[in-house]
Order: sequence, then structure tokens, then C-alpha cells
Amino acid sequence: MTNNNYVRIFDTTLRDGEQSPGATMTSAEKLEVAHNLARLGVDIIEAGFPAASPDDLEAVRRIALEVGNPAHPESEARVPVIAGLARANKPDIDKAWEAVQGAKKPRIHTFLATSPIHMKHKLKMDPEEVIQRVSEMVTYAKSLCADVEFSPEDAGRSEPEFLYVVLGEAIKAGATTLNIPDTVGYTTPDEFYALIDGIIKHTPGMHDGITVSVHCHDDLGLATANTLAGIRAGARQAEVTMNGIGERAGNTSLEEVVMALKTRHPVFGLDTGIETQQLSRISKLVSNYTGIVVQPNKAIVGSNAFAHEAGIHQDGMLKHQSTYEIMRPEDVGVNQTNLVLGKHSGRAALRNRLAEMGHSLDDVELDKAFARFKDLADRKKVITDLDLEALIADEFYKPRDVYLLSGLQVTSGTMGMPTATVRLRGPDGVIHTVATIGTGPVDATYKAIDQIVSVPCTLLEFNIHAITEGIDALGEVTVRIQSESGATTMDAQSEVEYVRVYGGHGADSDIIVASAKAYINALNKLIVAQTEGKGKVPNDFGVMLG
Amino acid sequence: MTNNNYVRIFDTTLRDGEQSPGATMTSAEKLEVAHNLARLGVDIIEAGFPAASPDDLEAVRRIALEVGNPAHPESEARVPVIAGLARANKPDIDKAWEAVQGAKKPRIHTFLATSPIHMKHKLKMDPEEVIQRVSEMVTYAKSLCADVEFSPEDAGRSEPEFLYVVLGEAIKAGATTLNIPDTVGYTTPDEFYALIDGIIKHTPGMHDGITVSVHCHDDLGLATANTLAGIRAGARQAEVTMNGIGERAGNTSLEEVVMALKTRHPVFGLDTGIETQQLSRISKLVSNYTGIVVQPNKAIVGSNAFAHEAGIHQDGMLKHQSTYEIMRPEDVGVNQTNLVLGKHSGRAALRNRLAEMGHSLDDVELDKAFARFKDLADRKKVITDLDLEALIADEFYKPRDVYLLSGLQVTSGTMGMPTATVRLRGPDGVIHTVATIGTGPVDATYKAIDQIVSVPCTLLEFNIHAITEGIDALGEVTVRIQSESGATTMDAQSEVEYVRVYGGHGADSDIIVASAKAYINALNKLIVAQTEGKGKVPNDFGVMLG
Repeated sequence: MTNNNYVRIFDTTLRDGEQSPGATMTSAEKLEVAHNLARLGVDIIEAGFPAASPDDLEAVRRIALEVGNPAHPESEARVPVIAGLARANKPDIDKAWEAVQGAKKPRIHTFLATSPIHMKHKLKMDPEEVIQRVSEMVTYAKSLCADVEFSPEDAGRSEPEFLYVVLGEAIKAGATTLNIPDTVGYTTPDEFYALIDGIIKHTPGMHDGITVSVHCHDDLGLATANTLAGIRAGARQAEVTMNGIGERAGNTSLEEVVMALKTRHPVFGLDTGIETQQLSRISKLVSNYTGIVVQPNKAIVGSNAFAHEAGIHQDGMLKHQSTYEIMRPEDVGVNQTNLVLGKHSGRAALRNRLAEMGHSLDDVELDKAFARFKDLADRKKVITDLDLEALIADEFYKPRDVYLLSGLQVTSGTMGMPTATVRLRGPDGVIHTVATIGTGPVDATYKAIDQIVSVPCTLLEFNIHAITEGIDALGEVTVRIQSESGATTMDAQSEVEYVRVYGGHGADSDIIVASAKAYINALNKLIVAQTEGKGKVPNDFGVMLG
Repeated sequence: MTNNNYVRIFDTTLRDGEQSPGATMTSAEKLEVAHNLARLGVDIIEAGFPAASPDDLEAVRRIALEVGNPAHPESEARVPVIAGLARANKPDIDKAWEAVQGAKKPRIHTFLATSPIHMKHKLKMDPEEVIQRVSEMVTYAKSLCADVEFSPEDAGRSEPEFLYVVLGEAIKAGATTLNIPDTVGYTTPDEFYALIDGIIKHTPGMHDGITVSVHCHDDLGLATANTLAGIRAGARQAEVTMNGIGERAGNTSLEEVVMALKTRHPVFGLDTGIETQQLSRISKLVSNYTGIVVQPNKAIVGSNAFAHEAGIHQDGMLKHQSTYEIMRPEDVGVNQTNLVLGKHSGRAALRNRLAEMGHSLDDVELDKAFARFKDLADRKKVITDLDLEALIADEFYKPRDVYLLSGLQVTSGTMGMPTATVRLRGPDGVIHTVATIGTGPVDATYKAIDQIVSVPCTLLEFNIHAITEGIDALGEVTVRIQSESGATTMDAQSEVEYVRVYGGHGADSDIIVASAKAYINALNKLIVAQTEGKGKVPNDFGVMLG
């Protein structure tokens, strides 16, 4: 078993994180997140579950090609491993390999449940069959790919002795990473420590070439503590997501594990490759793309995490800092997002800033971005990185425009007759204009859009937030919609088919306009998926960046 | 030391939670939260820090009188202890006693820092002086109140041997609860276990009448694990907040500790008095009143915590439940908030439902609520508990109206000239009407309000969310503003003066109207505090309930 002082960070934001209800991202958004995770310094990016749908496979394939290969030969050491998840069957493993093989360092991650409750009710297999299957499928994966990871699903509720046998077979068959998931977020740190400790001590064939990994869920609020307990017991890979997103209460937060190891370095004596100054920015990027908000009191990346300064008299604050701060805001990049461009900034300054943020635009794209930037700068004194991210997301990361907003006029107020007039350009180039009344200005706008678009769907969620401080802030609207007859995607573990939920976002200084853009954005994704998603891979890259 | 199987839940949502930047609640909101915490079954409510300001003292006094006394003699056993925080000095202790003495079971909670860094830089006292002060001040508190709790602040970074001495003196002086805070969220579960274990074993005079308590912060994401570690070591009181709100990354979440003890009962063998079916409702209440959102992936109370059902085919869901669920949604009341009233529901049904939710209205108030209810029911098919909470909050829990919205008309859209016409009734009864242009409809509305009200302030935060699903949902807007010359409040621990931040909320099916209401609501709070807050206690109870 590998027992050094380096903990590998395995990010599964794009796989387990994206399984959060409503967190569906477009392929372009996934690619952008993957680029940023690589810049953050994660060791492994689990890019998706290729067998879930052709879309998922294609997204993983793109990430493997574009993020999983060095831009220059000298940057090869920093290129992350790109992993694809596969159930323990040949078709899944074939699809995972198809998706990741273009990466410089591909990995197949396969899993099979080992807890009595899962073997009996989900797999309907007896323990002997499970052992046999693991051996066969790890062997098969190994025949395709040198780097194979195996996870005994629901390990937290499995018999330790049975785990030792299964894991020993996985080692024999060629797995080099053994990942121990607490799938349902059930264990306590002491139990999880004992589990990992037992696995390291008792698994037959455990040797220095094997990395033990931990994968925890936060159902009881213990994911970070369990992950650290596993690391103390000898695990040297942690499976995590940005902001702790994921199904139910989510996965272990990348930022919490990394900052606990760093802040308490004398206790743990362990390092990661994470550039912690990027945490704040990438947290916001993931929140914007998934629409999953980060609560103000979230450790490390919440807006209040370092916010005791607000309104404090200056001398008090200085006294305060030395006594109440265990981490400096700069360490996680909190203060770096506020440097900025103004209305006199030129094209070159914008291009440089965007390049620093990881967006490399060609001239045509830069022209578009610059026009949007100038327009915003006329209305808003200071343009921050967050404004730029929102602008870029709004301009470039959207599905092919099926319907395009060409005009909106809304009247509302206390007289109780909110009225919206909406003008859309349809896929046939025809302009449609409709006026309707609603219960509020957004309702009226959405009803008008519905009359034109005519795709029956349910609005699941609607959120507005100001991206930056001050009332001249750019407002961002996130919506989630679900078609009544929509495409499905499969959850790898429960094998349950979900009806896809489509998220849309729109940014504008007028929140009603932003609301209209967000809804049209989500409807366009849904329409593209419905018309092209059956077997054919939708091209939702729109204008591609980089 | 008390060593039984019952863990007391000490809720500090109204004290440490309310210290979150921007979480300021009105006295009426605090009282309502306290009533609900009592219904939830918490053992101790820390109602505030009475020395912070006259407002804070008055809020604690009201809670002590109204929530800290049994409505009927037979309900006495269920009446919570009401605690007030005090620094270790006579004026603070006097104010705490003045505030809590009206309760059936009052408690004074005093504290003094014991870590080298705090003693040196903050207190500028040597260890001998600290011991002396603790002894004197606990003795003084005990002379006023039989129930005294003492906390050695920053215990997580204090020398254990020094803690034993200080805590031994506190016991000698009459403290019956010793609370051990990890003030800066610095410890790991193993360290915190060892700290509590050492205190219980080595503090001189430790006996069965003493309760050891734990108070953790979540800076590294370990608050829940640390709290559970302390409980395993023998602590029998946990200091927590709803939703884990609090300064920086917040306090330990009440709901996580309670559900971990319940879900893993065979491991811990411990009980609490919490009615867990109320958790979901009270979480939402606290989120609405403080304006601090709960992220979807928050353990126990996040909107996704039990949300794997969304869009799952029915048979899959059944298979899923038995294998992936360690808690039932009903256990935390997730499904109970959706039962409901419709447009044909009568006055009696509304009164009953509100009474079940803890709102006992008199006939005049019920008339007002019923009129609002009918108005909403005309626009919205189904009225849920959350709609009712929003309606009650909007109608009754607001400061005395200084300015009142009497009309609003807004036009906006892609033509880029958002215009708002606002009509307000001022404190003198005069009607003011102003029209302005802004960068968006909310900006235009707020600029028009500013022109009428003329109180210079900064908008710190602006949030809109839909309270319920569907586009006909009631929208709720939360704002936070800060006056440039405003009243201050003091943080008990850092002794830092904060400029008060005022939150406002407004609910309406038209989000622009809700935005206007929220801003006026916050401005009214600010104006009341500025004109009456200096020495005089503002009456911001408006129309009182119950």
C-alpha cells in the first residue's frame, strides 16, 4: 500500500456531483469545469458515467481529449488522470474505455455492491457471485486500461471480512486503486477509521503499489470527518466534490478536506497538490453552472466564512484577526476576485483577464465579449471576475439557440395586472410576438414564452441572486425545468432512470430580462435533447471556446 | 458529572446564530423563533447577549417572560431554560440577570478566554488573574441565579492543565454547567474527544451534578463530528443552532447532531428531547427570518437531502428506498409541510392550521390574515404551510410602518429604460409619488424609494427565491442594508462593535412588489433604530400575535 505523505484529490464534481437533482450541466459547461479543476491541481477528474447516455459519453470523451492531454510537453506532470465510471459489466466498461482512452492518463473506475442489503435487494447475487464478477470485470478493465480503480459499493454497511476477500480479488485482477465508499453517509469517524485500518491490514495482497481511497457522503454531516479519519488510517486518495455537491446531502467537500489538511498540517503531516488560492473562484463557477447555491455559512467557501470583518471598526478588526482567524482569506482566494476592470479598460485588458481566468477567446469571440463588457461597464462602475464569468457563461455557454429572445416589455406593480409582451425568433427564423397577463411579471413573461414555444414542461425551481454587491449588480437567474415526456438518464448506483432536469441561466441588469433568458435557455436545452437526444449526440456546444 | 443517556440540546440560534453578518432579527421575529424552539423541544434557549444593546436585553426579557413560563401548570416540565450570555464582569452579569429573571428556569451563562493567545492579546491578563476573575464572577452570578454556566473561551486552543484548574474554580464557585467551546473551529474529532475526556477525568471537584457541554464551530467542516466526539467522551449538553448558522462558517447544526444520535442510536445509546418531525419546518422558519439560505445539499434540512425521488420511475423508487435511505423524510417532517388549504377553506380551517403552526391570532388579526389568504388563494391553487408562514411574517412581523407602500408601477424590458413609479405614505401621513429610471426594474424602484425616504444606506445583499414550487409561487425577497451612520451592537467574544445590518423581507406573487416591500421593511427598521435606538428601546412589535 502506498504510504507516503501525499493525498491524491479525486474530484467527482462532474460525476457524483452532477447527479444532484437539477445540477445537469451542458457538455460545454462540463468541459469548462474540467479545465478549471485541472488548473486547481486535482490529481484525478472523474468526468462522468459514460454508460448513462450518449451525451454523458461524449462529454467524458471531450474532457479526456481536451483536459486530459498536456498543452505543452513540459506540462505533462500536471495533467490530471481522467476517469470514467462503469458498473461491473462489459458494456459499461467498454463505454468507459471508449470515453477515456483519448486521455494521456486514462482510468476505468468500476464498482459492485458488497453490503448484504445491496447484494440481496439490488444485485440479487450471492456473495460468491459478487467475488466472481469483481474478479472477471476488473480483469477485463485491466485488459483495456493500465489504471483500474475498484469500489465495493456501500462498503460502510458491508461485512469487513467479506470486503477483505473482494478487495483481495480486485488486487489480484489488477486494480491499483481500491476506493471505499460510505455510499449512504451512515458511518461515524471511528467506525470509518476502523474500516480503512482493517482493510489496509487484512486485505490479501495489499502492497505499496495499491492506493486506498475514501468516498464519503454527508447525510449525517460527517463526510469531512469520515474522510479525514480514513486518511489518518492510511488512505491516500480522497474522492470529493466542489462545494460538497452530490445526491441527497452531497459528497465530501473538496475545499474542507484540503483546508483541514493544510491548516492542521502538524497534526496530519500530509500534502495535496491543490492551489488553494483558486478555491473561492472555482466554488463560484461550479455554483453558477449547476445552479446549486452555497450557503453563507458553508465552511471555506461560504460568503460569510471569512466575513467577520463586515462593519467592524478598524482597530477591532486587527485585534480580532490575530485571535479569531485560523485561515487567511487570501489562502482560499477570497480577496482575489475583486480586482477588476472598469469602463476605460480596453480589449487587451479584457483578453488578458479572461485568459487568466482560463477563457481563451478567438478574435470573433473577443469582439462579442468586448461589446457585452462595454455595455455592462456603461451601467456598472466596477466589473469583477464574477461579472465576467456570468457574461461569458451567458454569451458562450448556452445551447444552440432554438428560440432567441428578440424583445421583451413588462409592466407590473400593485395594480395587479402584470403584463408581458414577448418577442422570440423561432428555429424557422419566424418572429413571434405574444402578450399575456400573469400573477407577476415573471409568470406573465413565462406564460407568453410558453404560448410561443409550446413544449409542455414543469418549472421546478426559480432563483435570482445578485452576482455582485450593490443594486447595480448583474442579476443572475437560474431555473430548472422538467419535461413531462423527456429524455432520461441513469443513476449508476441505483440503476434508476431519472427524467432529465434542465437548468437554464441568464444574466442581465434587468432581472425580468434575466428571467426570460434563463427560461428560454432551459427550454432550448430541453428541445435539443428531445429532438436529437435519442441515440444521436446533441451538439450543444454553441460557440466553442478555446 | 452527569452521566446518563440524555443529551441536553442548548440552542443558541438567537445568540451565536444571530451574530452572523446580516442575520439580525426583530424582537418579534426572535420571540417567534423562541416559541418554535420550545415546541421543537430544546432544553435550553440562549436568547441573546443582553449587554450588547438595550434592544438585545429587551428581546431576551420578552422571551424569558413569554416562552420561559408554562402556559398551563401541567406543561411546566416542557418549559425550556432561558439563558442570557454575559462576559465575566458585574455589569454584564447584572444585565443578563435582569433579562432572564422572569423565566421559570433562568440561567446566566458567563465566559472568559483561557487560551494563551486570547489571554495575552485580547484580555491582557495573566493566568492567575483569569482564575481569580472566573472565581469571583461565577460566585457573583451564583448569588443572583441558581443555574450558572461557565465557558472557558477558545478552550480548543487552551492548555488542558490550565483548563482543569479554571474549571475546578468554576465548580467551586457554583457553576453547574461547564461548556467547552472550540471557538475558532480548529480541533479535530480525536483532539476534541481527548480534551473532553481529560476535563471529565482531571477537573477537581467534578461530580454528578455537573453537566459538561460542548460548543463547536464549523470552520473546517468538523463541527458535527467534534460535537459527537465530545458527547462520546461524556458531554451531556450540545450547544447548536438551527441550520448551523453563526459567525464565519457557523455553529454546529442542531439537526445534524440530533439526527446522528437518533439514526445511529445503537452506536451512541443516547436520547434527546427533540421532536424531529418539526426540524424541516423550523429550519425554513429560521431561514426566512434570518435571510440565510440553506443550500440544497445541506444534511437533513437541505431541499435535496431526501430528494432522490424527483423524477424517478415509481418501481425504481421503491427499490431505491430500501437500499439508499438511512432516514425517512417523515422523521424530519419533510412531507408534512405540503398539506394544505385551498380557496374553499374557511376561517376556521385557517385558524386551526395557524394554531397548529404556533400562531394564535385574535379575531382582528385573523380577519386580516384571512383576507390575505383569500387574496392569495385566488391566484394560487394550493396554499402550503410555507405560504402561510410567509404571509404571517409579511403581515404581522414587521416593524412599525414608518413608510408604507401605497402604489407601485414598473415598466421594464429589453428596450433598456426600466422605469418605476413609487407611491409611499410617509410617517406624517403625506403621500409621496416619484418616478425614476434605473438599470433594472428593482434598481429603478429602489432609487425612487431612496428619493422619498432619503436615508443614506448601502445595499449589501439582495435575494429572491420562490417559496413554493411552480411559477405561480409566492416570491420572497430578502435584502440587507447598512446605514453609514448607524447604531452598533457588540460581539460578546471579540468585544468588537459592529455597525448593525438590517434585513428586510417581503412576499408577493409579483417579485418587483416583493422587492419594494423588502426594501421598505429594512429601511423602516433602520429608521426606527436610528431615531429611537439610543438608550430607548424601540417597540418594533407592530401588531402583536398571541
